[in-house]
Amino acid sequence: MWQLYHFPLCPFSRKVRLALSEKGVAYELKRENPWDASDNFYALNPAGRTPVLHDSERNRTLVDSQAICEYLEETVDKTPLILGTALARAEIRRLVALFDESFFHDVTGPLMHEKMKKRIVLRAAPDSGVLRSAMRLAHEHLDYIDWLIDNHRWLAGAQMSLADFAAAAQISVADYLGGIDWTGHDTAHSWYRVIKSRPSFRSLLTDKMEGIPPASHYADVNA
Amino acid sequence: MWQLYHFPLCPFSRKVRLALSEKGVAYELKRENPWDASDNFYALNPAGRTPVLHDSERNRTLVDSQAICEYLEETVDKTPLILGTALARAEIRRLVALFDESFFHDVTGPLMHEKMKKRIVLRAAPDSGVLRSAMRLAHEHLDYIDWLIDNHRWLAGAQMSLADFAAAAQISVADYLGGIDWTGHDTAHSWYRVIKSRPSFRSLLTDKMEGIPPASHYADVNA
Repeated sequence: MWQLYHFPLCPFSRKVRLALSEKGVAYELKRENPWDASDNFYALNPAGRTPVLHDSERNRTLVDSQAICEYLEETVDKTPLILGTALARAEIRRLVALFDESFFHDVTGPLMHEKMKKRIVLRAAPDSGVLRSAMRLAHEHLDYIDWLIDNHRWLAGAQMSLADFAAAAQISVADYLGGIDWTGHDTAHSWYRVIKSRPSFRSLLTDKMEGIPPASHYADVNA
Repeated sequence: MWQLYHFPLCPFSRKVRLALSEKGVAYELKRENPWDASDNFYALNPAGRTPVLHDSERNRTLVDSQAICEYLEETVDKTPLILGTALARAEIRRLVALFDESFFHDVTGPLMHEKMKKRIVLRAAPDSGVLRSAMRLAHEHLDYIDWLIDNHRWLAGAQMSLADFAAAAQISVADYLGGIDWTGHDTAHSWYRVIKSRPSFRSLLTDKMEGIPPASHYADVNA
């Protein structure tokens, strides 16, 4: 069986968990903190980052969330997530990269540094200026989601795709850390509620990071 | 015809230029500086980043270097660059992400900030501590290339792939900016010389960034 090396607030592991669940692929979770990684983990991934998907019985190791999702897409027919024409698939990949890179750089990454890493590893107080900036940039990204959903049902078009799960994975971590304010983003909020109520999302909503309680509304699928 | 929006030292545009040339796809270059981007460019890519591949006649716009390379792979048969079994393709994508993300974060990005952006945009002196750190981390990445090439002919296996071009694109920018020292990396150096002498590399080696002369050996395919 596949084992997914992850930690609860890793947005890239969350993207892979959603893809695995949507595609009905069985897996078990293995906890790995990149800031305190084991030798065994470095042997699997010299870059020392989660997620890593590993199958010891068949000696298969997959590294990098997008490489993993492309592999799942190529090998599992159920629930296509990178679908449509080559041009439609390019649009899905553009949006996945936008959330994996820009949203993470602007919002999720700074929130994780200030509210998770500083508490668990660095034992320092969060910088309120950085937090304010991340929340301001979150509004810009939510504006873009509003605009996309005004134009079609899902982020990349008429069909649900990996773009929706990549975005929701980032937002779910930012939301856990109290960085998402839906005020003025009714359209994006409705879209997120739909994703959040999917069975694939359940295990994300019950996951906790020790010492860091989630925002009060975090696990409420109606909030 | 395709137009590629780029600037000469954008490593991600270089990866796409190499893929386009290897696949024999005709294109013309359009200069765009992300730090001074036009409204027209933001209309093509709200994220304001190069590369963007645009075809105005057929109204096609592709954004994000990896989305572009995947599109080329799906639509152009010549010179497969993401090739082999699903597992082999995952290994290629892992290495592409390693160079696009880690090498860029550790080496190319800091060098571009200190030696390009500070000179052209910020009018400030480079920070020698940051430059030393980037060059030290470059050695670690070259060690990894040595190890990969000790084990098989190309970075991802027996065949040349997008992993080789993603790595060479990053290294070529770092080398232009004087950040690559091949001492102790004969294996990686031989691999890079082979890539550097391919016809697809020629236009990269003659490209200049105004106000920033390349390192003296940069365009010498024997150096």
